[in-house]
Amino acid sequence: MQPERLRTLADGIFAIALTLLVLELPVPLHSTDLGHDLLPQWPFYAAYVVSFVTLGIVWMNYHALLDGVGTVDRALVELNLLLLLFVAVVPWPTGLLAEYLREPDGQSSAAAITYGAVMTAMSGTFTLIWIRLARARDLLHPRARTRLRGALRRSAVGPAAYAASTVIAVFNATTAFVLFAAVAVYFALSARRRPTEPAPG
Amino acid sequence: MQPERLRTLADGIFAIALTLLVLELPVPLHSTDLGHDLLPQWPFYAAYVVSFVTLGIVWMNYHALLDGVGTVDRALVELNLLLLLFVAVVPWPTGLLAEYLREPDGQSSAAAITYGAVMTAMSGTFTLIWIRLARARDLLHPRARTRLRGALRRSAVGPAAYAASTVIAVFNATTAFVLFAAVAVYFALSARRRPTEPAPG
Amino acid sequence: MQPERLRTLADGIFAIALTLLVLELPVPLHSTDLGHDLLPQWPFYAAYVVSFVTLGIVWMNYHALLDGVGTVDRALVELNLLLLLFVAVVPWPTGLLAEYLREPDGQSSAAAITYGAVMTAMSGTFTLIWIRLARARDLLHPRARTRLRGALRRSAVGPAAYAASTVIAVFNATTAFVLFAAVAVYFALSARRRPTEPAPG
Amino acid sequence: MQPERLRTLADGIFAIALTLLVLELPVPLHSTDLGHDLLPQWPFYAAYVVSFVTLGIVWMNYHALLDGVGTVDRALVELNLLLLLFVAVVPWPTGLLAEYLREPDGQSSAAAITYGAVMTAMSGTFTLIWIRLARARDLLHPRARTRLRGALRRSAVGPAAYAASTVIAVFNATTAFVLFAAVAVYFALSARRRPTEPAPG
Repeated sequence: MQPERLRTLADGIFAIALTLLVLELPVPLHSTDLGHDLLPQWPFYAAYVVSFVTLGIVWMNYHALLDGVGTVDRALVELNLLLLLFVAVVPWPTGLLAEYLREPDGQSSAAAITYGAVMTAMSGTFTLIWIRLARARDLLHPRARTRLRGALRRSAVGPAAYAASTVIAVFNATTAFVLFAAVAVYFALSARRRPTEPAPG
Repeated sequence: MQPERLRTLADGIFAIALTLLVLELPVPLHSTDLGHDLLPQWPFYAAYVVSFVTLGIVWMNYHALLDGVGTVDRALVELNLLLLLFVAVVPWPTGLLAEYLREPDGQSSAAAITYGAVMTAMSGTFTLIWIRLARARDLLHPRARTRLRGALRRSAVGPAAYAASTVIAVFNATTAFVLFAAVAVYFALSARRRPTEPAPG
Repeated sequence: MQPERLRTLADGIFAIALTLLVLELPVPLHSTDLGHDLLPQWPFYAAYVVSFVTLGIVWMNYHALLDGVGTVDRALVELNLLLLLFVAVVPWPTGLLAEYLREPDGQSSAAAITYGAVMTAMSGTFTLIWIRLARARDLLHPRARTRLRGALRRSAVGPAAYAASTVIAVFNATTAFVLFAAVAVYFALSARRRPTEPAPG
Repeated sequence: MQPERLRTLADGIFAIALTLLVLELPVPLHSTDLGHDLLPQWPFYAAYVVSFVTLGIVWMNYHALLDGVGTVDRALVELNLLLLLFVAVVPWPTGLLAEYLREPDGQSSAAAITYGAVMTAMSGTFTLIWIRLARARDLLHPRARTRLRGALRRSAVGPAAYAASTVIAVFNATTAFVLFAAVAVYFALSARRRPTEPAPG
């Protein structure tokens, strides 16, 4: 199987997950003061933006990863499907977090922990893919092999940051949510500082 | 990253946003006179058509833009993801506007303002992309550089028209809705008057 | 714009419309005899299959059409978007028809008329595309021009058959539904009798 | 029609079906103890994972099949659309099974039989495609013809295993669900033991 095949399925799943997020946005029913009823829904808008930005960055990093891959074996395909399983599931914890962010601690924490657990699993799978590539270097383009060590190290920042935020979610959901947003911003900025690496080949 | 990558994700998101619009169309439940109950839902049909046509035109303009782009840098990718964030969100204000268009002024205005704000943000991001290209002309194909000034000027018409319609929505939602439809028709016609520009390359 | 661009968006919209049909299939809630409660939902299963087969055939014919097209102009793109507008809307009348097929005549007729009207509009737009190509033959590959007359004639069968079925829906919804299914089967079989035409170029 | 066309539609439908599965995951409403209310939803999480893994494997096998196909005729396209009809429907029995897995025998059996019937039909259509290819060998690449017999035999394992699990679902839904999961794991592992077959070409 060629990497191009994986990209097509992945692009489809990213595009759909990004768009399904909007189904979580509620249309108030039987509102008699709509202007007033739209504002308290801010956790839904904020959660939409944070999840969209996060998935957008994962999408960029995913293609940057595949740019370096020359051939894929079955184990790599399966790890990719595992990544896509978590990508596809993101709308669910997004809706859960938006629904319960302003509820008392017991509820909001459970929602934020769930959100953080999915994000930790998603970014952790990303690291697993890099580990797999480090063990099967012949799947990589020669030029990509020299950058492997740095990419592997950087890819470990995501699951670590999400795991830490998830622990904080046990105590305070709002703080955890701010951290989820901060992780997305950090990745957007840190990627910018690096020069754009041309795709080998 | 190559423009082709962006096109694939964008095509996916446009296709899904265009299709998710249909989920806003209500199936009347337990109707005892269906023929009679389908007609009062006309705001949903009208909003479906206006949003579909609008997104269809944005899709055409988006590919016309990318036709002129030779390479993309990280800032351009991020602006594109911002555009897609607003594209993906369109089904939500569409449903909101359809639900509240025939309600008293307080509600219908809030819905039309929300719709207009999303459209202003979407078309404004389009202008931002052109501004970015004007500052980084080397991302463009040589032939596209000569047309940059006109494209930039034309791209400012959208956010201006949507912002004006949104201001009018404060006073009357139905007038604003007619204007949203008129903007779509204007863009469809104005694009037709220009000869089809062949993709450079 | 190249035909390939249209194919990508169209494939996306067809794929999503085909898959969104499944959202119309109801999961019975709080059923105490599920085996018994699943059977009366047969209009939903039947409507799912008929709409899926119909859209599948339109998808095949759509690509057969584009196989003959060398370049597209703006008018052709707009007609294509109109076709896709009706393709994307199909899940809605499908759900409507399934919901009301076994209701008294007043309701079931209204639902079947709506279904038939969407199908007539969809297949009618297909004919409009062929008429446009007949008036702008230079958009076609040379080989496709010789087959234009036959294709145009065949494409008129669809809207005629759907319009007739819609008229019958005024009197009896179930008969109309059987006709909608028969049209799909007829197209599947009639296409088979023609030898597969290789794509020019 | 070229196989590439089918792949695009199929990738779209697989991507959407895989992502729509998430719409079955419920967000508890008005929960006063969310952490406690999320756990009893485990059949939804388990059904999500099993259906995602199953569809992921079918997607891999589907492309492995198309790798060997040189040209497609109308009958093959129609069999492919039939396969995609069952792929697109998977989210529905998944939600049904998740909803009723912990209900009394009458309900859970009906849900598991429905799930098994869809899976049997889906994998049975896969076998039908191989049978069709065995009867029209000239559609295959020369290299793929030598592997036809083995592929056909392996493809019969799926419907047989699903049919047997569906029979067991008559007696016990939970056992059947474990078997559905086991079939997915078996296919994932058995595919791994075979060396990756390069695409002919």
